[in-house]
Amino acid sequence: MSDEVLRVGVIGARGRMGTEVTQAVDAADDLDLVAAVGGREWLFSLSDAGSQVVVDFTHPDVVMEHIRFAVDQNIHAVVGTSGIDDERAETIRGWLASKPGLGVIVVPNFAIGAVLAARFAREAARFFESAEIIELHHAGKVDAPSGTAIATARGIAGARAAAGLAAVPDATTMEAAGARGAQVDGIHVHSVRLPGMVAHQEVVLGSSGETLTIRHDSLHRSSFMPGVLLAIRSVADHPGLTFGLEQLLGLD
Amino acid sequence: MSDEVLRVGVIGARGRMGTEVTQAVDAADDLDLVAAVGGREWLFSLSDAGSQVVVDFTHPDVVMEHIRFAVDQNIHAVVGTSGIDDERAETIRGWLASKPGLGVIVVPNFAIGAVLAARFAREAARFFESAEIIELHHAGKVDAPSGTAIATARGIAGARAAAGLAAVPDATTMEAAGARGAQVDGIHVHSVRLPGMVAHQEVVLGSSGETLTIRHDSLHRSSFMPGVLLAIRSVADHPGLTFGLEQLLGLD
Amino acid sequence: MSDEVLRVGVIGARGRMGTEVTQAVDAADDLDLVAAVGGREWLFSLSDAGSQVVVDFTHPDVVMEHIRFAVDQNIHAVVGTSGIDDERAETIRGWLASKPGLGVIVVPNFAIGAVLAARFAREAARFFESAEIIELHHAGKVDAPSGTAIATARGIAGARAAAGLAAVPDATTMEAAGARGAQVDGIHVHSVRLPGMVAHQEVVLGSSGETLTIRHDSLHRSSFMPGVLLAIRSVADHPGLTFGLEQLLGLD
Amino acid sequence: MSDEVLRVGVIGARGRMGTEVTQAVDAADDLDLVAAVGGREWLFSLSDAGSQVVVDFTHPDVVMEHIRFAVDQNIHAVVGTSGIDDERAETIRGWLASKPGLGVIVVPNFAIGAVLAARFAREAARFFESAEIIELHHAGKVDAPSGTAIATARGIAGARAAAGLAAVPDATTMEAAGARGAQVDGIHVHSVRLPGMVAHQEVVLGSSGETLTIRHDSLHRSSFMPGVLLAIRSVADHPGLTFGLEQLLGLD
Repeated sequence: MSDEVLRVGVIGARGRMGTEVTQAVDAADDLDLVAAVGGREWLFSLSDAGSQVVVDFTHPDVVMEHIRFAVDQNIHAVVGTSGIDDERAETIRGWLASKPGLGVIVVPNFAIGAVLAARFAREAARFFESAEIIELHHAGKVDAPSGTAIATARGIAGARAAAGLAAVPDATTMEAAGARGAQVDGIHVHSVRLPGMVAHQEVVLGSSGETLTIRHDSLHRSSFMPGVLLAIRSVADHPGLTFGLEQLLGLD
Repeated sequence: MSDEVLRVGVIGARGRMGTEVTQAVDAADDLDLVAAVGGREWLFSLSDAGSQVVVDFTHPDVVMEHIRFAVDQNIHAVVGTSGIDDERAETIRGWLASKPGLGVIVVPNFAIGAVLAARFAREAARFFESAEIIELHHAGKVDAPSGTAIATARGIAGARAAAGLAAVPDATTMEAAGARGAQVDGIHVHSVRLPGMVAHQEVVLGSSGETLTIRHDSLHRSSFMPGVLLAIRSVADHPGLTFGLEQLLGLD
Repeated sequence: MSDEVLRVGVIGARGRMGTEVTQAVDAADDLDLVAAVGGREWLFSLSDAGSQVVVDFTHPDVVMEHIRFAVDQNIHAVVGTSGIDDERAETIRGWLASKPGLGVIVVPNFAIGAVLAARFAREAARFFESAEIIELHHAGKVDAPSGTAIATARGIAGARAAAGLAAVPDATTMEAAGARGAQVDGIHVHSVRLPGMVAHQEVVLGSSGETLTIRHDSLHRSSFMPGVLLAIRSVADHPGLTFGLEQLLGLD
Repeated sequence: MSDEVLRVGVIGARGRMGTEVTQAVDAADDLDLVAAVGGREWLFSLSDAGSQVVVDFTHPDVVMEHIRFAVDQNIHAVVGTSGIDDERAETIRGWLASKPGLGVIVVPNFAIGAVLAARFAREAARFFESAEIIELHHAGKVDAPSGTAIATARGIAGARAAAGLAAVPDATTMEAAGARGAQVDGIHVHSVRLPGMVAHQEVVLGSSGETLTIRHDSLHRSSFMPGVLLAIRSVADHPGLTFGLEQLLGLD
């Protein structure tokens, strides 16, 4: 990428995340905020302003239209909107097939700490006899376990399977229903919902005589901005469709 | 109680806890270990040796016989054996009715830290919107939740009810079975089972903007000895049947 | 106190805490917000409006003048402003001497969780061989340890002394300067300063084989409002000068 | 390495770690315990028994002699004894220079969880504004901070420097001596010493709105055995001098 300033447009600029993103882009010396449109506004103001990258925090109902627009206009896209499933991902790859230099990055969780926590849990999994997940959120959350916890559990289960580990040990024979949590691919996950909590996750791995705990605490959506900026700066170097921040961190 | 040394007998002296108890009594300047019998040995060696207090760590099948013996012989008893339910307690009270100066103390958990943790959780409960319990034990434990967690949950629920608090808030509408734990009197309890753990319990209380966490970690049965010694030294001053260490701590 | 609504005035109503307080009073059914003045405005609007209780979150330079005004006008006062030392407390007691029914409550920390944590730490102290404090705050805090940690350490040290406990055990002979923290009345206190933290304190008490941890996490100043409302509702029943929320909690 | 059983000798076999090691080797199907000698016994029984790998848990005063013996006899060595500094390492490399297939592995900490924790802390360091370390040990430990904490702090400091990060932020202007801990290469380290603790370390990394915590708890020396067995099985594939377990874990 050149040393020149990167021209950035934001879609959904007046939502909670969008507001935070416009401020973060505005404050970055190497980024230039050239357009900020609401979720249902005229998208061509993005291309008219010469956006090189657009950031989308809108709604699952409209996000595909936005990505299609960006691809058509040869603008890279960073997508924080949820709802991009396997089928939609296939559609996006189809659009990108004829645009070899163009990148779309879809990110379920922009908190770099959360990305690292999930990665470390996965890497550590094969060295321990067992692992469980405790995730703690505010009492207003409707789903349990959290999406992040489910993804983390799957990562751990996959790493254990790849290493040939057996099922986690569990001698429980008398259980009050639910005490041992939900099982996600064989990994026990416990969801605490409590006023005063924000978003927290703890992976505990254990073997005879030792435990390793990897905990991420997210207290404010400002914690997502370093990840958003990283994705904006990296998208041009990652043509095609990329899922998640991990490959952008340069850890491998 | 006089300044003289207290004469102590131990029943179940060759079990894991009994061994630890005989050593602890032996090491205490104000206590004299005068008899140490196995779980099925001749009990009269306890009275022949002039025991003033007997400590019992044996088995639910024989503990009532031991307590009956102690009461008959006018010896105070400290009981760490499990299995003393309401009916048995009533029986013991009957035996003690005609022995006004005699004391029997039945203790489910001798770890003073665990007793304090349960008490503090109960005291704090009415000041917070909600509370949940996470207990973590080694993977060989057969029951979930632990008995201590169930007792703690009941204490919290009782304190909330006495203060007129409503049910704990919970917006969960999409739950993978078990994710939100077991409910004990309306309090959510989560049981983690992991190699490397010993016996740990965490009560988390939350209100808008703050949480209070009370955690007890028990790593070794040596942690029970201060509670055993306290019960031995206190039993003569607590005639009748006493449940648990809390009243002996002088906190009220 | 009667069943009628209590008339409340706020001084410093446009500061961060004052704004939060006016909203909390406004939202409470049993309280009536009758006056809200800035830190340097005409105080008589408080008495003209018939305030029965005033709440002060202003500045150490002006707080004594505000308390003097309240006492003169026979208005109870709840004071969250810092800077009330022993000398000032003596002055306030002098003012109150001739007003036997009037109450002034000075509160260093309105978070009920923090008050409970300090109390529990003090109560538990005599049952453990040792205790240390770890407090964690955002990187912008200028003092270390925090005032709350110092007060907690003194409470623990006092409880240990009253119980006749010796100095805490410490075998350290090779120490990089500062590793073992600051000592406050013989209790080691460690201050962590980190972006992403808000205000957290952990007291860890330990004896052979067990530890008891009491942790308070304060994430938002909304956590202070239950304590402010409690003080407003209680002040008329606590004539004279009261320090801290603990006596208002009804724990003894 | 062939599928045949590996012949292992243990030096210092009657010490606490040596005893544990002999049992662990004995219990492993792919290892054959062929010799177990005390720290000051006849070393040639190791070679007479056909040891292919020797494990040394003895004393800094004699460990170099043992390594020299192993190299002379063309036996691979796994060394858990402390005291191998840079100068000694140079000496060992000299001995190995003429033995291209021979391996010596010197391991400061055999707990795989501790190795992973240090690695993850180092990897995460460049993504966070700051990091601090809290290590907690039993009250009998003489040095503060622990050697593991010092090594972890250096790893974090190195990673921060390599990424061009500035010094960690710290606004402290009023500090009770020691409150902010010891500084190791600019990283603050806090050492808690408490009865009831064994060996624990927590690295906390923070940025605006989030923290990542990596904690290792070591409760028993059984936690070292998986690392010891890994080193025994790997040493023949790592000719020359290797420091620590990390390269053996296959994480890169």
